[in-house]
Amino acid sequence: MIELRKDPIVDRWVLIAKNRAARPQEFVAAPRRQRHLVCPFCPGSEQLTPHEIDAIRDEGSTADARGWRARVLPNKFAAVLGAGEGAGAAQLGTTSDGLYASLPAEGVHEVIIEAAEHLVGTSQLPLPHLHDIFRLYQRRLLAARHDERRLRHGLIFKNVGEAAGASIEHLHSQLIALPIVPPVVWEELTGALEVMKQLGKCAWCEMIDRELADGRRVVLDAGSFVAFCPYAARFAGETWIVPKRHASHYEWAGDAELGELAAVAREVLGKLETTLDRVAYNYMLHTAPFDTQRLDHYHWHLEIIPRVTRTAGFEWGTGCHINPLPPEEAAERLRIAAWLGR
Amino acid sequence: MIELRKDPIVDRWVLIAKNRAARPQEFVAAPRRQRHLVCPFCPGSEQLTPHEIDAIRDEGSTADARGWRARVLPNKFAAVLGAGEGAGAAQLGTTSDGLYASLPAEGVHEVIIEAAEHLVGTSQLPLPHLHDIFRLYQRRLLAARHDERRLRHGLIFKNVGEAAGASIEHLHSQLIALPIVPPVVWEELTGALEVMKQLGKCAWCEMIDRELADGRRVVLDAGSFVAFCPYAARFAGETWIVPKRHASHYEWAGDAELGELAAVAREVLGKLETTLDRVAYNYMLHTAPFDTQRLDHYHWHLEIIPRVTRTAGFEWGTGCHINPLPPEEAAERLRIAAWLGR
Repeated sequence: MIELRKDPIVDRWVLIAKNRAARPQEFVAAPRRQRHLVCPFCPGSEQLTPHEIDAIRDEGSTADARGWRARVLPNKFAAVLGAGEGAGAAQLGTTSDGLYASLPAEGVHEVIIEAAEHLVGTSQLPLPHLHDIFRLYQRRLLAARHDERRLRHGLIFKNVGEAAGASIEHLHSQLIALPIVPPVVWEELTGALEVMKQLGKCAWCEMIDRELADGRRVVLDAGSFVAFCPYAARFAGETWIVPKRHASHYEWAGDAELGELAAVAREVLGKLETTLDRVAYNYMLHTAPFDTQRLDHYHWHLEIIPRVTRTAGFEWGTGCHINPLPPEEAAERLRIAAWLGR
Repeated sequence: MIELRKDPIVDRWVLIAKNRAARPQEFVAAPRRQRHLVCPFCPGSEQLTPHEIDAIRDEGSTADARGWRARVLPNKFAAVLGAGEGAGAAQLGTTSDGLYASLPAEGVHEVIIEAAEHLVGTSQLPLPHLHDIFRLYQRRLLAARHDERRLRHGLIFKNVGEAAGASIEHLHSQLIALPIVPPVVWEELTGALEVMKQLGKCAWCEMIDRELADGRRVVLDAGSFVAFCPYAARFAGETWIVPKRHASHYEWAGDAELGELAAVAREVLGKLETTLDRVAYNYMLHTAPFDTQRLDHYHWHLEIIPRVTRTAGFEWGTGCHINPLPPEEAAERLRIAAWLGR
């Protein structure tokens, strides 16, 4: 049983997922280097993983065998209950005894292996390949959206490097779809609605206009996308990639747009990966909840957070962050960073 | 200039503190072991630190010289502006251009060196000494509370181990007081007010009653305090120490109560430090904002979070947490953990 438990006081949800204690790196007191005798994500290891549920494959190749360029698997140590395991209980809603509330954690937890080669950086992927990956993200989000259990939100995210929480080095992303609208998305929705009431405009559209006019925090302005370090960046080098055209749902983006996103993401991550050798980072694809139609006040975007500083007692105790690198300077460093990978 | 910047959409504040980039361990791409040729917190290094502003000293010893058992210093790499540096600007309040808001980060950032000996674990402190440290916390909070710049909240926190954000190994805590009520505290206040409306009772008082009646999550029930793993624990082994008597402000706790807190904290941290050798952890002392009187719906407490798992893209993208060790099992492990340090 995996439960989603809500904190009795604040809007904080926790997946109590005991099965994950079996992961090789859980409960280590000190950081360890990632080492696997055999990489479970490399070709030849297909039998070590759960059966694939989606893939980008050479014509004529068969599932769970060689001949793939990307594979999607259920996470072996899923943080959620798979189809059938929760007996549709999520649809019954939250149970609460007046103080403590919980919900069976029905959902989707997938791993997207992004290349057959043992690559460790996103910018190592050729552009057409990364375009394919962004298409795959869209396909997986659409599948979760149409899950008959009526999940409410899906997050695509990537952990690169041990300091960013990756337990396997081979380049991969993950999708977790949940039966709740997660607090971060909920806060974005309510905050952005407030901005719309005050300015009569989508908050991200307003940000794009201001950032392009100001220029100091812009990392890259290219076609349909702009990459900038946000005004209140939490992390040194934090960068958001935002489509200029207003759109609330990533899963409805056009194919040409995904191609442009791939080019911008590849260049921005290339700059980051060049500036700091083997930098640890996360990226998170922020998109509107499944059970919404096109929203005027939400704007999908990709948030990239380098993990070069650590969160400590201050961050956990206040919810404030300390960023030693002003976003204006981070953007300048990233703008001038050489990246010859194009 | 250090700024407090607010995210334009969500309730998230960031201290843009460029001066901290000078810290020896900022911007490292890979984790490093803590190593200092000379520990700046050991006796004999007093001249390497800023002048002390408070201390527990042997009679006859003088400031910034040997003869101390605990020292309080302004943080050399403060995340906030000291008295005078902000020219009282915080009292002018937040400036906002309609989207982006900021505030000069006036405040207090102190380091509390907790022992002259080069200790690395809280449970290594003799009980009367730890009692003195909890008194010192109270004194420093009261000083910040009475700061003429009218700061709004103070957080005492401790980082132990590199994975918990400590850059110096020698046992120490910190105080950061800010001109805002931090989001975590604000959320606790509003959430607890909601619980009070529904149950007619303080949320933490209700939790204590339920946890003591249930017992599964109780780590230690001793006199005026109970230590338990919270129902929606975010981290494996997360433990809260809560006074049974309702009280909103740590700074007004009685001296006998501080002595009992020291005993319970020492035993709980001793269990943790024994169970996992050199475990990294944070603790955060949650207390009500300075500009409040006794509150019926807030209850001060100490939150301990072991840092044995890492936060990754999922946590940052959703605000949800994945905890592989159910609090019921964590409490059982901690209950039976031997600790002979009494």
